[in-house]
Amino acid sequence: MWDVLFTNVHLATMADGAHGSYGEVRDAAIAVKDGRIAWLGPQAEMPKGQQAVTVHDGGGSWLTPGLIDCHTHIVHAGNRSNEFEARLNGATYEDIARAGGGIMSTVRATRAASEEELLRQSLPRVRSLLAEGVTTIEIKSGYGLTLESEAKMLKVARRIGRELPVRVVTTFLGAHALPPEFAGRADDYVDEVCKMIAPLAAEGLVDAVDAFCERIGFSYAQTERVFQAAQAQGLPVKLHAEQLSDQRGAELTARYKGLSADHLEHLTADGVQAMAAAGTVAVLLPGAYYFLRDTTPPPVAALREAGVLMAIATDCNPGTSPMTSLLLALNMACTLWRLTPQEALAGVTLNAARALGLYTEIGSLEVGKRADFALWRIARPADLSYAIGLNPCRGVVNAGMLRSPAM
Amino acid sequence: MWDVLFTNVHLATMADGAHGSYGEVRDAAIAVKDGRIAWLGPQAEMPKGQQAVTVHDGGGSWLTPGLIDCHTHIVHAGNRSNEFEARLNGATYEDIARAGGGIMSTVRATRAASEEELLRQSLPRVRSLLAEGVTTIEIKSGYGLTLESEAKMLKVARRIGRELPVRVVTTFLGAHALPPEFAGRADDYVDEVCKMIAPLAAEGLVDAVDAFCERIGFSYAQTERVFQAAQAQGLPVKLHAEQLSDQRGAELTARYKGLSADHLEHLTADGVQAMAAAGTVAVLLPGAYYFLRDTTPPPVAALREAGVLMAIATDCNPGTSPMTSLLLALNMACTLWRLTPQEALAGVTLNAARALGLYTEIGSLEVGKRADFALWRIARPADLSYAIGLNPCRGVVNAGMLRSPAM
Ligand SMILES: [Zn+2]
Ligand SMILES: [Zn+2]
Repeated sequence: MWDVLFTNVHLATMADGAHGSYGEVRDAAIAVKDGRIAWLGPQAEMPKGQQAVTVHDGGGSWLTPGLIDCHTHIVHAGNRSNEFEARLNGATYEDIARAGGGIMSTVRATRAASEEELLRQSLPRVRSLLAEGVTTIEIKSGYGLTLESEAKMLKVARRIGRELPVRVVTTFLGAHALPPEFAGRADDYVDEVCKMIAPLAAEGLVDAVDAFCERIGFSYAQTERVFQAAQAQGLPVKLHAEQLSDQRGAELTARYKGLSADHLEHLTADGVQAMAAAGTVAVLLPGAYYFLRDTTPPPVAALREAGVLMAIATDCNPGTSPMTSLLLALNMACTLWRLTPQEALAGVTLNAARALGLYTEIGSLEVGKRADFALWRIARPADLSYAIGLNPCRGVVNAGMLRSPAM
Repeated sequence: MWDVLFTNVHLATMADGAHGSYGEVRDAAIAVKDGRIAWLGPQAEMPKGQQAVTVHDGGGSWLTPGLIDCHTHIVHAGNRSNEFEARLNGATYEDIARAGGGIMSTVRATRAASEEELLRQSLPRVRSLLAEGVTTIEIKSGYGLTLESEAKMLKVARRIGRELPVRVVTTFLGAHALPPEFAGRADDYVDEVCKMIAPLAAEGLVDAVDAFCERIGFSYAQTERVFQAAQAQGLPVKLHAEQLSDQRGAELTARYKGLSADHLEHLTADGVQAMAAAGTVAVLLPGAYYFLRDTTPPPVAALREAGVLMAIATDCNPGTSPMTSLLLALNMACTLWRLTPQEALAGVTLNAARALGLYTEIGSLEVGKRADFALWRIARPADLSYAIGLNPCRGVVNAGMLRSPAM
């Protein structure tokens, strides 16, 4: 006896999504037992006599794996629309920095906010993602920059996973920016960051460790120290790498068998090869590219040719990608960087699962995987990448439980 | 006695929106009588003893004029995600044309669809706009290209205005493309288009007349014939002008005192001056610019300097702008073309009302205008342009009647 059965659907299983296939099964059914996929296939081939407690008629919808946003800074206080407006009215970046703007304004607001307030401000952004069929979100810290306030951010991330129907994966990003109290003492701050990892991990707040390796962030050597501290705690690493310049961050990440290197607009051929050899996923973030009016795309063709798996995420953050639509990120990846719609969908399902180290659990429709699905009123899977600003999601399933997209 | 009173709101009246102001009124109230604005101002200055049948507490929301999408092709059958996908997999435009793709595939699908089917396919797109606070939509014909099928499209547009809480303004765009049965006989087809205007207008289906003036569309002379036929029926004109090349379409439109010239990426200084002198609105369409990866922006600075009013619209259409989010068009106008958030908001309120010739009716919060509002959970008006893919709309008011954004 199955718990739940969805009939009259078309599946995009994405089971072979890394190799150019949607894994389409037309006129299909998919069954759930104990929150996991128990059977799937053409409805006509359903085992005779098999029954389910609950049967949902999909009405000809497409059913895909629940979407995965594998790179977000969605927990933060305040926004930066005032800077956006000031800049469009002629203020320079220096004007804004002098007025206390930039990332430090988000750090101040996030430090000042209570845990409740931080949660309250973050929930509408998360709900915006969930309404589009997202069932798993990665959430980074990095606007606290003290042990206490980084812990607060990560606790809010965990609470989101309890209060909303979404699986949350947390990433400690203490090495996001240099806090003002460490001005001129970046190495001292990196020491602090390394010391934060053990206590945060002990509280169960950290699933992975990340850093911002950039001229305006942390150096290769500083990043490596953070990676070593993560490794000492048995935590996987990932990196904001090669966004604005080549720092050999992707190679460093590959050396530490990192889950992913993210951004990558300035990735070199050596970086591509290192990632391919290590199986490090390329997480592409078109929202930041768009919002910053960047003109150097990541080397998509080289990544494709080398067999590096590509994921796509919103990078939701107040400074460089105030974006809370993962479907729009698909469209941008296709429109701006010429990914195919199939690559885009694989980028928020199978490959995003790999970027989070959850490949055996989620990311495709396969027997034994978690029953996280999205149901879509679309004519074909490419519609998810083609439409701009339309939400065709008609249902979301978390571990077999169907909910309406709007919560 | 007022019919409805909204208290505890901040207003962006946009009453002086063409001159750089949001018209902010903090801690305000706004009253409705007979579907029109009866009073507005600081709540503390509300006339003593004045009462209302219904009072809504806005809970500190911002309240703006209902948004206006003044250029859409939202009524059409089918979509073109298959071409989008084929192109990203390497097919050329010629391959797609040979396979029967392009605009003619939309014409075939729209001709084949019944009025009911056309309505059914169009409603989700319209609902997507309405969920973001849109209260007025312009809808063009132009995928039928016969009297009968153009009438069918315009009837569907009118039905949308009856079946959903939105004001619909229709535009006859028979001169959108040359139908295959007139191949090589464009002038003959323009004769047909001119003849369609009177019967369609007699049925009450036409509020304005538009054409696509372009090398791949209709010539200056052909467009002028359409304008003359429109003028003979007393109908205002507008034009798809200077999108891909300079055809002096904006000057032609100005000469006919047109409501708007739209797209304008290749507008010349002469065109700007002609528009300024005639009071023709520049309707900017960033969705098409983005989707086509165009690199020539419209001359925003010149338009601004000349005092040409700028509106912004989705251009929702299956071939070049499959976009159903007007808020996203605001963000694109700011991000890609450096409009200010104030200009962007004026572009979908006051200036969009002007582009539709409805300036005395809608587009700003002023006593006597129609009570079409949107309520927003935002910190400041710039948030509407800043956020990407977030819908902060918490209520929509049509002629004084409050509804939830989701229908
Ligand atoms: Zn990031
Ligand atoms: Zn158009």
